[in-house]
Amino acid sequence: MTPSETGQRGPAEHARREQIIEAANEHFRHYGYTKTTVADLAKAIGLSTAYIYKFFDSKRAIGEAICSICLGKIASELRKIADDDRSAADRLRRVFRALAENGAELFFHDRKLHDITVAAQTEGWQTVPKHEAMLLEIVRRIVREGREAGEFERKTPMDETCHAIMVVLQPFHHPILLAQNLDSLNEDAAAVANLVLRSLAP
Amino acid sequence: MTPSETGQRGPAEHARREQIIEAANEHFRHYGYTKTTVADLAKAIGLSTAYIYKFFDSKRAIGEAICSICLGKIASELRKIADDDRSAADRLRRVFRALAENGAELFFHDRKLHDITVAAQTEGWQTVPKHEAMLLEIVRRIVREGREAGEFERKTPMDETCHAIMVVLQPFHHPILLAQNLDSLNEDAAAVANLVLRSLAP
Repeated sequence: MTPSETGQRGPAEHARREQIIEAANEHFRHYGYTKTTVADLAKAIGLSTAYIYKFFDSKRAIGEAICSICLGKIASELRKIADDDRSAADRLRRVFRALAENGAELFFHDRKLHDITVAAQTEGWQTVPKHEAMLLEIVRRIVREGREAGEFERKTPMDETCHAIMVVLQPFHHPILLAQNLDSLNEDAAAVANLVLRSLAP
Repeated sequence: MTPSETGQRGPAEHARREQIIEAANEHFRHYGYTKTTVADLAKAIGLSTAYIYKFFDSKRAIGEAICSICLGKIASELRKIADDDRSAADRLRRVFRALAENGAELFFHDRKLHDITVAAQTEGWQTVPKHEAMLLEIVRRIVREGREAGEFERKTPMDETCHAIMVVLQPFHHPILLAQNLDSLNEDAAAVANLVLRSLAP
Protein backbone atom coordinates (compact mmCIF):
# COMPACT_ATOMS: atom_id res chain seq x y z
CA MET A 1 0.00 0.00 0.00
CA THR A 2 1.23 3.50 -0.78
CA PRO A 3 1.30 6.23 1.88
CA SER A 4 -1.51 8.11 0.14
CA GLU A 5 -3.77 5.06 0.36
CA THR A 6 -3.24 4.63 4.06
CA GLY A 7 -3.35 8.33 4.87
CA GLN A 8 -0.07 8.27 6.73
CA ARG A 9 2.40 11.11 6.68
CA GLY A 10 5.93 9.99 7.31
CA PRO A 11 8.29 7.11 7.94
CA ALA A 12 7.72 7.19 11.71
CA GLU A 13 3.99 6.82 11.30
CA HIS A 14 4.55 4.11 8.75
CA ALA A 15 6.68 2.16 11.24
CA ARG A 16 4.06 2.65 13.96
CA ARG A 17 1.38 1.33 11.66
CA GLU A 18 3.46 -1.74 10.82
CA GLN A 19 4.01 -2.34 14.52
CA ILE A 20 0.27 -2.26 15.21
CA ILE A 21 -0.39 -4.68 12.35
CA GLU A 22 2.27 -7.05 13.62
CA ALA A 23 1.02 -6.96 17.19
CA ALA A 24 -2.58 -7.38 16.01
CA ASN A 25 -1.56 -10.34 13.88
CA GLU A 26 0.06 -12.00 16.90
CA HIS A 27 -2.93 -11.23 19.06
CA PHE A 28 -5.51 -12.51 16.56
CA ARG A 29 -3.52 -15.71 16.11
CA HIS A 30 -3.78 -16.40 19.81
CA TYR A 31 -7.23 -15.14 20.65
CA GLY A 32 -9.07 -15.12 17.32
CA TYR A 33 -10.16 -12.15 15.25
CA THR A 34 -13.90 -12.29 15.91
CA LYS A 35 -13.67 -12.25 19.70
CA THR A 36 -11.06 -9.49 19.92
CA THR A 37 -12.13 -5.86 20.28
CA VAL A 38 -9.97 -2.84 19.48
CA ALA A 39 -9.89 -2.18 23.24
CA ASP A 40 -8.52 -5.71 23.91
CA LEU A 41 -5.96 -5.15 21.23
CA ALA A 42 -4.90 -1.73 22.55
CA LYS A 43 -4.48 -3.16 26.03
CA ALA A 44 -2.43 -6.11 24.78
CA ILE A 45 -0.16 -3.87 22.69
CA GLY A 46 0.13 -1.28 25.42
CA LEU A 47 -1.37 1.57 23.42
CA SER A 48 -4.52 3.62 23.87
CA THR A 49 -7.59 2.80 21.79
CA ALA A 50 -7.54 6.40 20.55
CA TYR A 51 -3.98 5.97 19.35
CA ILE A 52 -4.90 2.85 17.33
CA TYR A 53 -7.84 4.74 15.80
CA LYS A 54 -5.35 7.33 14.55
CA PHE A 55 -4.04 4.64 12.23
CA PHE A 56 -7.07 2.44 11.58
CA ASP A 57 -10.75 3.29 11.29
CA SER A 58 -11.88 -0.02 12.74
CA LYS A 59 -10.90 -3.54 13.69
CA ARG A 60 -11.89 -4.53 10.18
CA ALA A 61 -9.33 -2.10 8.71
CA ILE A 62 -6.62 -3.84 10.77
CA GLY A 63 -7.97 -7.23 9.68
CA GLU A 64 -7.93 -6.15 6.05
CA ALA A 65 -4.33 -4.99 6.38
CA ILE A 66 -3.31 -8.40 7.80
CA CYS A 67 -5.33 -10.28 5.19
CA SER A 68 -3.80 -8.19 2.46
CA ILE A 69 -0.27 -9.00 3.68
CA CYS A 70 -1.04 -12.75 3.79
CA LEU A 71 -2.64 -12.73 0.35
CA GLY A 72 0.21 -10.56 -0.96
CA LYS A 73 2.65 -13.31 0.04
CA ILE A 74 0.60 -15.88 -1.86
CA ALA A 75 0.34 -13.54 -4.85
CA SER A 76 4.09 -13.00 -5.01
CA GLU A 77 4.71 -16.75 -4.77
CA LEU A 78 2.26 -17.33 -7.64
CA ARG A 79 3.81 -14.58 -9.77
CA LYS A 80 7.22 -16.14 -9.27
CA ILE A 81 5.81 -19.46 -10.51
CA ALA A 82 4.16 -17.81 -13.53
CA ASP A 83 7.39 -15.96 -14.36
CA ASP A 84 9.79 -18.87 -14.46
CA ASP A 85 10.76 -20.64 -17.64
CA ARG A 86 9.25 -24.08 -17.11
CA SER A 87 6.49 -25.49 -19.30
CA ALA A 88 2.99 -24.08 -18.91
CA ALA A 89 1.79 -27.49 -17.67
CA ASP A 90 4.40 -27.54 -14.96
CA ARG A 91 3.65 -23.97 -13.90
CA LEU A 92 -0.09 -24.64 -13.74
CA ARG A 93 0.48 -27.73 -11.61
CA ARG A 94 2.64 -25.66 -9.27
CA VAL A 95 -0.04 -22.96 -9.02
CA PHE A 96 -2.44 -25.58 -7.61
CA ARG A 97 0.18 -26.89 -5.20
CA ALA A 98 1.31 -23.43 -4.05
CA LEU A 99 -2.26 -22.27 -3.44
CA ALA A 100 -3.04 -25.34 -1.35
CA GLU A 101 0.25 -25.22 0.59
CA ASN A 102 0.33 -21.48 1.21
CA GLY A 103 -3.34 -21.32 2.08
CA ALA A 104 -2.90 -24.08 4.63
CA GLU A 105 0.32 -22.59 5.98
CA LEU A 106 -0.61 -18.92 6.17
CA PHE A 107 -4.09 -19.28 7.51
CA PHE A 108 -4.09 -22.51 9.43
CA HIS A 109 -0.73 -23.10 11.05
CA ASP A 110 -2.57 -21.41 13.86
CA ARG A 111 -6.24 -22.16 13.38
CA LYS A 112 -7.31 -18.97 15.15
CA LEU A 113 -6.47 -16.86 12.13
CA HIS A 114 -9.03 -18.81 10.18
CA ASP A 115 -11.84 -16.56 11.41
CA ILE A 116 -10.21 -13.53 9.79
CA THR A 117 -10.50 -15.18 6.38
CA VAL A 118 -14.10 -16.15 7.06
CA ALA A 119 -14.88 -12.55 8.03
CA ALA A 120 -13.19 -11.43 4.81
CA GLN A 121 -15.46 -13.72 2.79
CA THR A 122 -18.72 -13.11 4.61
CA GLU A 123 -18.28 -9.35 5.02
CA GLY A 124 -17.12 -8.95 1.42
CA TRP A 125 -13.71 -7.39 2.11
CA GLN A 126 -12.04 -5.92 -0.96
CA THR A 127 -9.05 -8.20 -0.37
CA VAL A 128 -11.06 -11.17 -1.70
CA PRO A 129 -12.01 -9.95 -5.21
CA LYS A 130 -8.53 -8.43 -5.52
CA HIS A 131 -6.98 -11.80 -4.77
CA GLU A 132 -9.30 -13.52 -7.23
CA ALA A 133 -8.46 -11.01 -9.96
CA MET A 134 -4.75 -11.69 -9.36
CA LEU A 135 -5.36 -15.43 -9.59
CA LEU A 136 -7.36 -15.10 -12.82
CA GLU A 137 -4.55 -13.02 -14.30
CA ILE A 138 -2.02 -15.78 -13.45
CA VAL A 139 -4.29 -18.52 -14.86
CA ARG A 140 -4.95 -16.57 -18.08
CA ARG A 141 -1.29 -15.93 -18.60
CA ILE A 142 -0.22 -19.56 -18.15
CA VAL A 143 -3.07 -20.87 -20.32
CA ARG A 144 -2.30 -18.30 -23.04
CA GLU A 145 1.40 -19.12 -23.02
CA GLY A 146 0.61 -22.86 -23.06
CA ARG A 147 -1.64 -22.35 -26.08
CA GLU A 148 0.98 -20.27 -27.86
CA ALA A 149 3.62 -22.93 -27.22
CA GLY A 150 1.31 -25.66 -28.60
CA GLU A 151 1.19 -27.37 -25.21
CA PHE A 152 -2.55 -26.75 -24.70
CA GLU A 153 -5.58 -27.16 -26.98
CA ARG A 154 -6.99 -24.00 -28.58
CA LYS A 155 -10.52 -25.02 -29.56
CA THR A 156 -12.27 -24.13 -26.32
CA PRO A 157 -12.86 -20.39 -25.93
CA MET A 158 -10.11 -18.93 -23.73
CA ASP A 159 -12.66 -17.34 -21.39
CA GLU A 160 -14.50 -20.59 -20.80
CA THR A 161 -11.30 -22.51 -20.09
CA CYS A 162 -10.03 -19.92 -17.63
CA HIS A 163 -13.42 -19.54 -15.97
CA ALA A 164 -13.67 -23.31 -15.41
CA ILE A 165 -10.15 -23.42 -13.97
CA MET A 166 -11.03 -20.59 -11.58
CA VAL A 167 -14.06 -22.56 -10.36
CA VAL A 168 -12.07 -25.75 -9.78
CA LEU A 169 -9.44 -23.72 -7.90
CA GLN A 170 -12.06 -22.70 -5.33
CA PRO A 171 -11.45 -25.68 -3.03
CA PHE A 172 -7.82 -24.50 -2.79
CA HIS A 173 -8.35 -20.89 -1.89
CA HIS A 174 -11.74 -20.61 -0.28
CA PRO A 175 -10.98 -20.46 3.47
CA ILE A 176 -13.93 -22.64 4.52
CA LEU A 177 -13.08 -25.38 2.04
CA LEU A 178 -9.37 -25.12 2.86
CA ALA A 179 -10.24 -25.67 6.50
CA GLN A 180 -12.51 -28.61 5.76
CA ASN A 181 -10.14 -30.34 3.35
CA LEU A 182 -6.92 -29.65 5.23
CA ASP A 183 -5.97 -33.32 5.55
CA SER A 184 -6.27 -34.16 1.86
CA LEU A 185 -5.34 -30.77 0.41
CA ASN A 186 -2.09 -31.71 -1.32
CA GLU A 187 -3.51 -34.90 -2.74
CA ASP A 188 -6.68 -33.08 -3.89
CA ALA A 189 -4.62 -30.34 -5.54
CA ALA A 190 -2.46 -32.88 -7.39
CA ALA A 191 -5.50 -34.85 -8.61
CA VAL A 192 -7.36 -31.75 -9.79
CA ALA A 193 -4.24 -30.29 -11.45
CA ASN A 194 -3.86 -33.56 -13.37
CA LEU A 195 -7.50 -33.47 -14.38
CA VAL A 196 -7.14 -29.88 -15.60
CA LEU A 197 -3.97 -30.75 -17.54
CA ARG A 198 -5.70 -33.69 -19.21
CA SER A 199 -8.52 -31.29 -20.19
CA LEU A 200 -5.95 -28.92 -21.72
CA ALA A 201 -4.24 -31.58 -23.85
CA PRO A 202 -4.28 -30.63 -27.56
CA MET B 1 -35.67 -44.17 7.12
CA THR B 2 -37.16 -47.40 8.40
CA PRO B 3 -39.41 -47.47 11.48
CA SER B 4 -36.73 -49.25 13.48
CA GLU B 5 -34.25 -46.44 12.76
CA THR B 6 -36.62 -43.74 13.93
CA GLY B 7 -37.90 -45.71 16.88
CA GLN B 8 -41.54 -45.20 15.95
CA ARG B 9 -44.19 -47.81 16.52
CA GLY B 10 -47.08 -47.55 14.10
CA PRO B 11 -48.60 -45.70 11.16
CA ALA B 12 -50.25 -43.08 13.38
CA GLU B 13 -46.93 -42.16 14.98
CA HIS B 14 -45.30 -42.15 11.59
CA ALA B 15 -47.86 -39.65 10.32
CA ARG B 16 -47.37 -37.46 13.40
CA ARG B 17 -43.64 -37.49 12.88
CA GLU B 18 -44.07 -36.46 9.23
CA GLN B 19 -46.38 -33.67 10.33
CA ILE B 20 -43.80 -32.33 12.78
CA ILE B 21 -41.10 -32.45 10.11
CA GLU B 22 -43.28 -30.61 7.65
CA ALA B 23 -44.26 -27.93 10.14
CA ALA B 24 -40.65 -27.56 11.26
CA ASN B 25 -39.54 -27.23 7.66
CA GLU B 26 -42.07 -24.41 7.11
CA HIS B 27 -41.04 -22.73 10.34
CA PHE B 28 -37.30 -22.93 9.67
CA ARG B 29 -37.83 -21.52 6.17
CA HIS B 30 -39.47 -18.45 7.65
CA TYR B 31 -37.48 -17.92 10.82
CA GLY B 32 -34.22 -19.74 10.22
CA TYR B 33 -32.97 -22.94 11.83
CA THR B 34 -30.30 -21.46 14.09
CA LYS B 35 -32.56 -18.95 15.83
CA THR B 36 -35.46 -21.35 16.39
CA THR B 37 -35.72 -23.34 19.63
CA VAL B 38 -37.78 -26.50 20.10
CA ALA B 39 -40.07 -24.39 22.33
CA ASP B 40 -40.61 -21.84 19.51
CA LEU B 41 -41.35 -24.67 17.17
CA ALA B 42 -43.78 -26.39 19.54
CA LYS B 43 -45.64 -23.13 20.05
CA ALA B 44 -45.86 -22.45 16.32
CA ILE B 45 -47.10 -25.97 15.56
CA GLY B 46 -49.48 -25.96 18.50
CA LEU B 47 -47.92 -28.94 20.28
CA SER B 48 -46.17 -29.26 23.61
CA THR B 49 -42.37 -29.37 23.74
CA ALA B 50 -42.66 -32.71 25.56
CA TYR B 51 -44.74 -34.11 22.71
CA ILE B 52 -42.12 -33.11 20.13
CA TYR B 53 -39.43 -34.73 22.28
CA LYS B 54 -41.39 -37.98 22.08
CA PHE B 55 -40.50 -38.04 18.38
CA PHE B 56 -37.15 -36.24 18.22
CA ASP B 57 -34.26 -36.12 20.70
CA SER B 58 -33.30 -32.58 19.79
CA LYS B 59 -33.71 -29.74 17.31
CA ARG B 60 -30.76 -31.21 15.49
CA ALA B 61 -32.62 -34.51 15.02
CA ILE B 62 -35.45 -32.57 13.34
CA GLY B 63 -32.92 -30.65 11.26
CA GLU B 64 -31.25 -33.87 10.20
CA ALA B 65 -34.60 -35.35 9.17
CA ILE B 66 -35.33 -32.28 6.99
CA CYS B 67 -31.82 -32.29 5.56
CA SER B 68 -32.09 -35.97 4.81
CA ILE B 69 -35.38 -35.46 2.91
CA CYS B 70 -33.88 -32.62 0.83
CA LEU B 71 -30.73 -34.59 0.07
CA GLY B 72 -32.84 -37.67 -0.67
CA LYS B 73 -34.65 -35.70 -3.39
CA ILE B 74 -31.32 -34.73 -4.94
CA ALA B 75 -30.09 -38.33 -4.67
CA SER B 76 -33.14 -39.74 -6.42
CA GLU B 77 -32.81 -37.15 -9.19
CA LEU B 78 -29.15 -38.10 -9.64
CA ARG B 79 -29.92 -41.83 -9.64
CA LYS B 80 -32.52 -41.25 -12.35
CA ILE B 81 -29.89 -39.47 -14.43
CA ALA B 82 -27.35 -42.26 -13.88
CA ASP B 83 -29.96 -44.90 -14.80
CA ASP B 84 -31.09 -43.55 -18.12
CA ASP B 85 -29.67 -44.74 -21.41
CA ARG B 86 -27.90 -41.65 -22.65
CA SER B 87 -24.14 -41.48 -23.19
CA ALA B 88 -21.91 -41.32 -20.14
CA ALA B 89 -20.76 -37.84 -21.19
CA ASP B 90 -24.32 -36.61 -21.33
CA ARG B 91 -25.18 -38.14 -17.97
CA LEU B 92 -22.11 -36.65 -16.31
CA ARG B 93 -22.96 -33.22 -17.68
CA ARG B 94 -26.46 -33.58 -16.31
CA VAL B 95 -25.14 -34.59 -12.88
CA PHE B 96 -23.33 -31.25 -12.67
CA ARG B 97 -26.40 -29.36 -13.82
CA ALA B 98 -28.79 -31.24 -11.52
CA LEU B 99 -26.58 -30.71 -8.47
CA ALA B 100 -26.31 -26.99 -9.12
CA GLU B 101 -30.02 -26.57 -9.89
CA ASN B 102 -31.36 -28.73 -7.09
CA GLY B 103 -28.95 -27.33 -4.56
CA ALA B 104 -29.99 -23.81 -5.44
CA GLU B 105 -33.68 -24.69 -5.52
CA LEU B 106 -33.96 -26.85 -2.42
CA PHE B 107 -31.81 -24.82 -0.12
CA PHE B 108 -32.02 -21.29 -1.40
CA HIS B 109 -35.44 -20.59 -2.84
CA ASP B 110 -35.93 -19.39 0.70
CA ARG B 111 -32.55 -18.30 1.97
CA LYS B 112 -33.47 -19.02 5.59
CA LEU B 113 -33.04 -22.75 5.09
CA HIS B 114 -29.42 -22.10 4.21
CA ASP B 115 -28.42 -22.12 7.88
CA ILE B 116 -29.59 -25.72 8.26
CA THR B 117 -27.08 -26.82 5.63
CA VAL B 118 -24.34 -24.80 7.28
CA ALA B 119 -25.15 -26.43 10.63
CA ALA B 120 -25.05 -29.82 8.89
CA GLN B 121 -21.54 -29.05 7.59
CA THR B 122 -20.08 -27.41 10.67
CA GLU B 123 -21.62 -29.84 13.18
CA GLY B 124 -20.67 -32.86 11.07
CA TRP B 125 -24.16 -34.30 10.60
CA GLN B 126 -24.19 -37.81 9.20
CA THR B 127 -26.34 -36.58 6.29
CA VAL B 128 -23.27 -34.94 4.72
CA PRO B 129 -20.90 -37.95 4.36
CA LYS B 130 -23.89 -40.09 3.35
CA HIS B 131 -24.69 -37.64 0.57
CA GLU B 132 -21.06 -37.56 -0.53
CA ALA B 133 -20.89 -41.35 -0.61
CA MET B 134 -24.01 -41.42 -2.81
CA LEU B 135 -22.47 -38.85 -5.12
CA LEU B 136 -19.20 -40.77 -5.38
CA GLU B 137 -21.14 -43.92 -6.23
CA ILE B 138 -22.94 -42.08 -9.07
CA VAL B 139 -19.68 -40.58 -10.38
CA ARG B 140 -17.88 -43.95 -10.26
CA ARG B 141 -20.70 -45.64 -12.08
CA ILE B 142 -20.88 -43.13 -14.92
CA VAL B 143 -17.09 -42.99 -15.32
CA ARG B 144 -16.86 -46.80 -15.32
CA GLU B 145 -19.63 -47.13 -17.89
CA GLY B 146 -18.06 -44.40 -20.01
CA ARG B 147 -14.73 -46.25 -19.92
CA GLU B 148 -16.38 -49.54 -20.81
CA ALA B 149 -18.18 -47.92 -23.74
CA GLY B 150 -14.91 -46.43 -25.01
CA GLU B 151 -16.22 -42.91 -24.46
CA PHE B 152 -13.64 -42.04 -21.76
CA GLU B 153 -9.88 -42.58 -21.50
CA ARG B 154 -8.67 -45.48 -19.35
CA LYS B 155 -5.05 -44.55 -18.63
CA THR B 156 -5.64 -42.54 -15.47
CA PRO B 157 -6.32 -44.69 -12.42
CA MET B 158 -10.06 -44.89 -11.84
CA ASP B 159 -9.71 -43.75 -8.20
CA GLU B 160 -7.73 -40.67 -9.14
CA THR B 161 -10.21 -39.65 -11.84
CA CYS B 162 -13.21 -40.07 -9.55
CA HIS B 163 -11.50 -38.35 -6.64
CA ALA B 164 -10.66 -35.33 -8.80
CA ILE B 165 -14.24 -35.15 -10.10
CA MET B 166 -15.54 -35.23 -6.53
CA VAL B 167 -13.28 -32.29 -5.61
CA VAL B 168 -14.40 -30.21 -8.59
CA LEU B 169 -18.03 -30.98 -7.72
CA GLN B 170 -17.58 -29.28 -4.33
CA PRO B 171 -18.57 -25.81 -5.57
CA PHE B 172 -21.91 -27.35 -6.64
CA HIS B 173 -22.88 -29.09 -3.44
CA HIS B 174 -21.11 -27.33 -0.62
CA PRO B 175 -23.80 -25.07 0.90
CA ILE B 176 -21.48 -22.13 1.52
CA LEU B 177 -20.10 -22.15 -2.01
CA LEU B 178 -23.59 -22.69 -3.46
CA ALA B 179 -24.75 -19.61 -1.60
CA GLN B 180 -21.78 -17.53 -2.71
CA ASN B 181 -21.94 -18.56 -6.35
CA LEU B 182 -25.72 -18.55 -6.74
CA ASP B 183 -25.72 -16.05 -9.60
CA SER B 184 -23.28 -17.92 -11.80
CA LEU B 185 -24.06 -21.48 -10.71
CA ASN B 186 -25.49 -22.83 -13.97
CA GLU B 187 -22.78 -21.23 -16.05
CA ASP B 188 -20.09 -22.49 -13.64
CA ALA B 189 -21.52 -26.02 -13.71
CA ALA B 190 -21.60 -26.07 -17.52
CA ALA B 191 -18.02 -24.79 -17.81
CA VAL B 192 -16.65 -27.26 -15.26
CA ALA B 193 -18.63 -30.18 -16.77
CA ASN B 194 -17.07 -29.33 -20.15
CA LEU B 195 -13.62 -29.18 -18.59
CA VAL B 196 -14.14 -32.57 -16.94
CA LEU B 197 -15.41 -34.08 -20.20
CA ARG B 198 -12.38 -32.75 -22.08
CA SER B 199 -10.20 -34.36 -19.40
CA LEU B 200 -12.01 -37.69 -19.94
CA ALA B 201 -11.58 -37.74 -23.71
CA PRO B 202 -9.74 -40.89 -24.85
